[in-house]
Amino acid sequence: MPNRLDRVRRQLAEHDANALLISNLPNIRWACGFTGSNGLLLVDPDEAIFVTDGRYTEQARQEVEGAEVLIAKEGLVSRLLDAGQLEGMDRVVFQADHVTVSRYQKLEEHCPEITWIPASGLLTRQVAVKEDREILQIRRAQAVTEAVFDHILDVLEPGKSEREIAAEIIYDHLRRGAEKMAFDPIVASGPNGARPHARPTDRTLQEGDLVVIDMGCILDGYASDMTRTVALGEPSAAAREGYDVVRRAQKQAIEHARAGLTGKELDALARDCIEEAGMKEFFSHGLGHGIGLEVHEWPRASYSVEDELPAGVCVTIEPGVYVPEEEYGVRIEDIVVLRSDGVDNLTSVSKELIIQ
Amino acid sequence: MPNRLDRVRRQLAEHDANALLISNLPNIRWACGFTGSNGLLLVDPDEAIFVTDGRYTEQARQEVEGAEVLIAKEGLVSRLLDAGQLEGMDRVVFQADHVTVSRYQKLEEHCPEITWIPASGLLTRQVAVKEDREILQIRRAQAVTEAVFDHILDVLEPGKSEREIAAEIIYDHLRRGAEKMAFDPIVASGPNGARPHARPTDRTLQEGDLVVIDMGCILDGYASDMTRTVALGEPSAAAREGYDVVRRAQKQAIEHARAGLTGKELDALARDCIEEAGMKEFFSHGLGHGIGLEVHEWPRASYSVEDELPAGVCVTIEPGVYVPEEEYGVRIEDIVVLRSDGVDNLTSVSKELIIQ
Repeated sequence: MPNRLDRVRRQLAEHDANALLISNLPNIRWACGFTGSNGLLLVDPDEAIFVTDGRYTEQARQEVEGAEVLIAKEGLVSRLLDAGQLEGMDRVVFQADHVTVSRYQKLEEHCPEITWIPASGLLTRQVAVKEDREILQIRRAQAVTEAVFDHILDVLEPGKSEREIAAEIIYDHLRRGAEKMAFDPIVASGPNGARPHARPTDRTLQEGDLVVIDMGCILDGYASDMTRTVALGEPSAAAREGYDVVRRAQKQAIEHARAGLTGKELDALARDCIEEAGMKEFFSHGLGHGIGLEVHEWPRASYSVEDELPAGVCVTIEPGVYVPEEEYGVRIEDIVVLRSDGVDNLTSVSKELIIQ
Repeated sequence: MPNRLDRVRRQLAEHDANALLISNLPNIRWACGFTGSNGLLLVDPDEAIFVTDGRYTEQARQEVEGAEVLIAKEGLVSRLLDAGQLEGMDRVVFQADHVTVSRYQKLEEHCPEITWIPASGLLTRQVAVKEDREILQIRRAQAVTEAVFDHILDVLEPGKSEREIAAEIIYDHLRRGAEKMAFDPIVASGPNGARPHARPTDRTLQEGDLVVIDMGCILDGYASDMTRTVALGEPSAAAREGYDVVRRAQKQAIEHARAGLTGKELDALARDCIEEAGMKEFFSHGLGHGIGLEVHEWPRASYSVEDELPAGVCVTIEPGVYVPEEEYGVRIEDIVVLRSDGVDNLTSVSKELIIQ
């Protein structure tokens, strides 16, 4: 992990700054290992200081690597000031996309002699490229979600409500050792499936429904994320066709994905396929997103994204179609690691349509 | 709810502004009823405009009261601009404690002719004072949590892990109709109870443990929050004494709490009692916090808070002691509504020590 702090330090020259103040907790975890819910990491060319509050005294000392630990009684910034850590500095970079205007005003008030430099997307590229052991951790989180999926197939049946299935998804993740859910699971059946971000309702599953199940957990800090669409009995011809289109689009994207494409190009691999099938209007979101310590990370793979995707990033590949008139939706989602010559797929659950 | 928009409008004069831009989602829900995850509410003296994205077209039209609904294809602010809603304005207030510096920079870039006025704590006082129907909604959420507590007493036994109990707490809340948890439940047994913000671990419950159980859910948008500490078999004399001290402190606070006290004065009602028992150093957090559409709202009831607490706010009363040397912790938490002459307690579960 000290190696990661060096990667943080490389940002100093770019901003011609004395130090970086890291406040986004997943970035702090990535840089120095702290897993609690309050902290600031100050990184200068020679050292790194981590400050948290009294609740985390013991935990910080156990977890933090490569940084000195300070414990604050009042505010975290006050503690840095008291310790003289900001003395003599005149330019400090902060994470503009994670700091509120109120907090920024307080920084300026506390340390009027410092020029506070707002930087957006600081560390996003560093964090996005995963080390092998991080990929292993995502695989492990994903394995829990896949085991849950197997269990859910056993309990998915007409008469149960979307909410009941969602509760079972959460319970089973936790029983299998997940720390928590990465997001509220989606269980969207029949016409509800036609809303891409549906929340589970009291609707009971019906014979003939397609059921979109989108779920992921956090295990040792890393996120999983998987969507499968399951049929309860024989679906309508339209729904079956929609499934096949999404299945083909997802396959095409995974077969041709590789590092070096832009987000837009990766998205197009699936979107073109859906467009050829005449269903373009029903694919109303981007193809996928980066994933790691956060369930949504840079880079997005979407039609408006010109960023090139580097080797080693983990992204979801999740095309979908949402067809209100035909009362169904389909989404299929895997996580892949982009390599220079293709991908490693971290998801092993079959994508053939399951009819049960 | 249009009445609430008028309460929002009263802030305009205070800031000598043309409009307020509300971006904090629970505040948006409070002001106009929208329950989705993306939106902005612009309120001027004559009208209110709510803008969200295409996922929420139907939902916004169903839910939003008192504001015109716009649907954005690109950014929400761009949509407001395109619709001419910001034309002719020169001073617009925004929520400085909910807007990042990045977003603020974008506002300035998009609308350079507007002076954007940062305001912290905008609407917190309005939102804090609850209408009767809101108190009823908190009662309903609390009733779910109380039913879960009864169920948990049936399954709490030596040999089960903290994680298993936490999973059961979540599952049972969802089965009983909760939308989701208000926060990750705390199940902290024996020595783990001595950490006020412990996360559930794989530790198995032991005969003689005190077990701190802190949990709350969201039902129809409103939060519940309750802590009880249960003994598995006869606790140590020290733990029993700690329980009695906290029980007395909580009773004292609830008996003497009323609107018009400052946060500090309310906190002192319990803190003095714990201090008299010689355990001051073990009560390491504030007495409580406001609760409503968010599980932590203004006002805090804590030793550093000079704000006066108005009638009609809902606050938690949750003293605790955390004693590592004796390997136990205790916390007892109810939600009360402050009235001019006392409180209404929204929590009905007994606070006698349960030994099982």
